[in-house]
Amino acid sequence: MTVTYEDVTGAARRIAGHVLRTPVLEVSPGLFLKLEQLQHAGSFKTRGAFNRILSAGELPPAGVIAASGGNHGLAVAHAARALGIRAEIFVPEVTSPVKVAGLRALGAQIRQTGALYAQAAEAAAKRAAETGALAVHAYDQPEVVAGQGTLGLELTGQVPGVDTILVAVGGGGLVAGVTVGSGALGGGTPGEGIGERAPDEGTGERTSGEGTRGPRIVAVEPELSRALHEALRAGEPVQVPVSGVAADALGASRAGGLAYAICSQAAAEGSLVSVLVPDEAIVAARRALWERHRVAAEHAGAAAYAALLSGAYTPAPGERVAVVICGANTDPSTLTAE
Amino acid sequence: MTVTYEDVTGAARRIAGHVLRTPVLEVSPGLFLKLEQLQHAGSFKTRGAFNRILSAGELPPAGVIAASGGNHGLAVAHAARALGIRAEIFVPEVTSPVKVAGLRALGAQIRQTGALYAQAAEAAAKRAAETGALAVHAYDQPEVVAGQGTLGLELTGQVPGVDTILVAVGGGGLVAGVTVGSGALGGGTPGEGIGERAPDEGTGERTSGEGTRGPRIVAVEPELSRALHEALRAGEPVQVPVSGVAADALGASRAGGLAYAICSQAAAEGSLVSVLVPDEAIVAARRALWERHRVAAEHAGAAAYAALLSGAYTPAPGERVAVVICGANTDPSTLTAE
Repeated sequence: MTVTYEDVTGAARRIAGHVLRTPVLEVSPGLFLKLEQLQHAGSFKTRGAFNRILSAGELPPAGVIAASGGNHGLAVAHAARALGIRAEIFVPEVTSPVKVAGLRALGAQIRQTGALYAQAAEAAAKRAAETGALAVHAYDQPEVVAGQGTLGLELTGQVPGVDTILVAVGGGGLVAGVTVGSGALGGGTPGEGIGERAPDEGTGERTSGEGTRGPRIVAVEPELSRALHEALRAGEPVQVPVSGVAADALGASRAGGLAYAICSQAAAEGSLVSVLVPDEAIVAARRALWERHRVAAEHAGAAAYAALLSGAYTPAPGERVAVVICGANTDPSTLTAE
Repeated sequence: MTVTYEDVTGAARRIAGHVLRTPVLEVSPGLFLKLEQLQHAGSFKTRGAFNRILSAGELPPAGVIAASGGNHGLAVAHAARALGIRAEIFVPEVTSPVKVAGLRALGAQIRQTGALYAQAAEAAAKRAAETGALAVHAYDQPEVVAGQGTLGLELTGQVPGVDTILVAVGGGGLVAGVTVGSGALGGGTPGEGIGERAPDEGTGERTSGEGTRGPRIVAVEPELSRALHEALRAGEPVQVPVSGVAADALGASRAGGLAYAICSQAAAEGSLVSVLVPDEAIVAARRALWERHRVAAEHAGAAAYAALLSGAYTPAPGERVAVVICGANTDPSTLTAE
C-alpha cells in the first residue's frame, strides 16, 4: 500500500472546488511562504478529509467519524457540513472547551471519551465498527495522504523550479503527501513546476538520476515530538514520547506506516532530510511570522519556518525555498506573547 | 496636477523589489481577497512611501519626514530604514506607547508634538522647511497616490476580468491610486487584467464608452468618518467630523485634493461609487475575516469587506469582486473579542 503521484493528481481533481488554492507570498527573493493556514477550517487537514470522504463512493447513513480534538477534527467536521453528511468526532476529555465549541459550531456531534488521544481514537474505531460510519484517519490512510499531497502539487505549480520545501511533521500525512505530490520522490514527473537541479547544488546530498528532479523535502519536527525522525533512525515506526508547544498538532506518538514507507524511500534517495527544532525556535518563528509578515499561525504552523530561522536547515545561495505554513487554529491573543 | 496610468506603471517599476507582490485568495467562486495586510510594515502605505522617496532623486542629508502615529508612519520608517536614510516621524501626544515603540524599533526619530494629528502635521511641515528633509504626505502627493495605485495594477493582473474592487477610504490616497492603476478611470488601458463588461451588467450605472472597460471601484467609508463621501456630495473637499473604530487609520477630516479630483471624475463616469458602513459592520467583518479565513486585519483593513457582508454593496450574480484587505497593524488579541 502506497500513494502514487497519480493518486495525488486524482485527489486534486476530486477536491477541486471544495478546498482553497491557498496563496504563496515571496517574502524575500527566493523565499516563499505557502499560506495554507488560510485553508478552510484553518489547516491543510481539509484536503485529506475531503479526499477520503469523496473517494468513498456512496456514504453510509451514519456519516463520517474521526478522533481529534484539533485540526483534523475541525477539517472532518467542516467537510461533512459542506457535503451535508453527519460527523461524529471523538475527542479526549482534556480537550479545551473552546475547541469543543468550535467543533460543535461546525455541526459535529462531539464525544468526549478517555483521558488521552489514544483512548478517544480507540473509542472512535469501535463506534465506526458499530455504526458503519466512514472512519477518516488523521494521517495513516492513502486517501488522506493523497489529499494532503495536493498541497505539494499546487505548490510546485505556484513556485516553478522550487528547490526545497520545508514541512512540519506530526504523524507524517502532510510530509508524505507533499513528498509524492511535489515530485520529490523518484525524481518527479516532468512538467510545469518540477524543477531541475544540478547534482552539485544545494547540500549536494542528492545523486543525479534522471535529468529532471523534484524538489528536496525538509521534514521538520520539534525535538520534543519526533516520531518520524526516530522511525527513520530505527528503520521502522517506533513509539516516542511527545510534549512541547506544538504537541497539540504535531504530537503523534508513532509515525504513520504509509508516511514512514514514503519518507524512508525518499530519504534513501536523498530527496528528504529530517531536522529537529527546539521549542524556543518554534515560539520565536511564530512570533516572527506575525511581527514581520502579519501571518497568524499556530505553533505547529510555524515549525517549518523555525527550521530556517534557527539554522536547523540552511539553504545554499540561490536556493529557492518554500515553507509550508500549515495551520492557524490558535488563540490570536498569544501571537505577541513573550 | 493629477496622476495618470503611466505614473502608476512608472511607480510599479520604481518600487519593484522594495515592496511585496501581495497574494490574492479566492475565498469563494468570484470573490477575491487582496491580502495587502501582508505588505512590508503591515499596510499598503509602504507602496506610496517608497515611490515618493525613490522619485525624489538625490535625497537631502536630513532624510525624510512624515506625520503619522499609524500605518503611514510605519511605512515611511520602514522605507527609510530599507534605503539607509534618516526618518523623522511626528506623532500626536496621544499616540499609544506601543505604536511609538514600533516606530522606534524601525529606527525612526520620534517627535511627539501636539494634542491632535493636525498639530503634529503642522510641526512636521515646519520642521521639513527648516531641515530640508523630504516630506512624505500620508495621501495628498502625486507620487504617494501613484505608489498606492500599484496595488490596483497588480490586482488586475492577478484577477483578470475583475468587475469590482472594494477599497477602504481615509484621505483617499489608496482609492484614488487604485482607480487609476486598475484602469477604472477613463475606461482603462487595454491589456491583461482589464476586464470587459457589457453595459447592462452589474448595477448598470456605467455607460458604455470604449469596448474595453476597467473595473468599477466601490469606495467604502465608515459612517463616522466619511471625508470622501461628503466631498463628492459637496462638489469639493469639506471638513468632516471623524470618530469610530477605524478612525486611527481612516479618520481623515478632509479628503485629499488629488483623491477628490480623481474620484469625482470616476464617479461622474459611473466607474466609482461611494458607500458607507456602520461601525458594527466593520467589527463583524474583522471578526469574520479571522473566524472564516484566518486573515488578521485591523478595523480599517476590514472596512471594505464590511461593505459586502452588510449589504452596503451587493454584487450581481456572476460578478467578479475583489476586496482589498489593506492593513493589519493591530493587536491580535482583539481579533476574537466580542
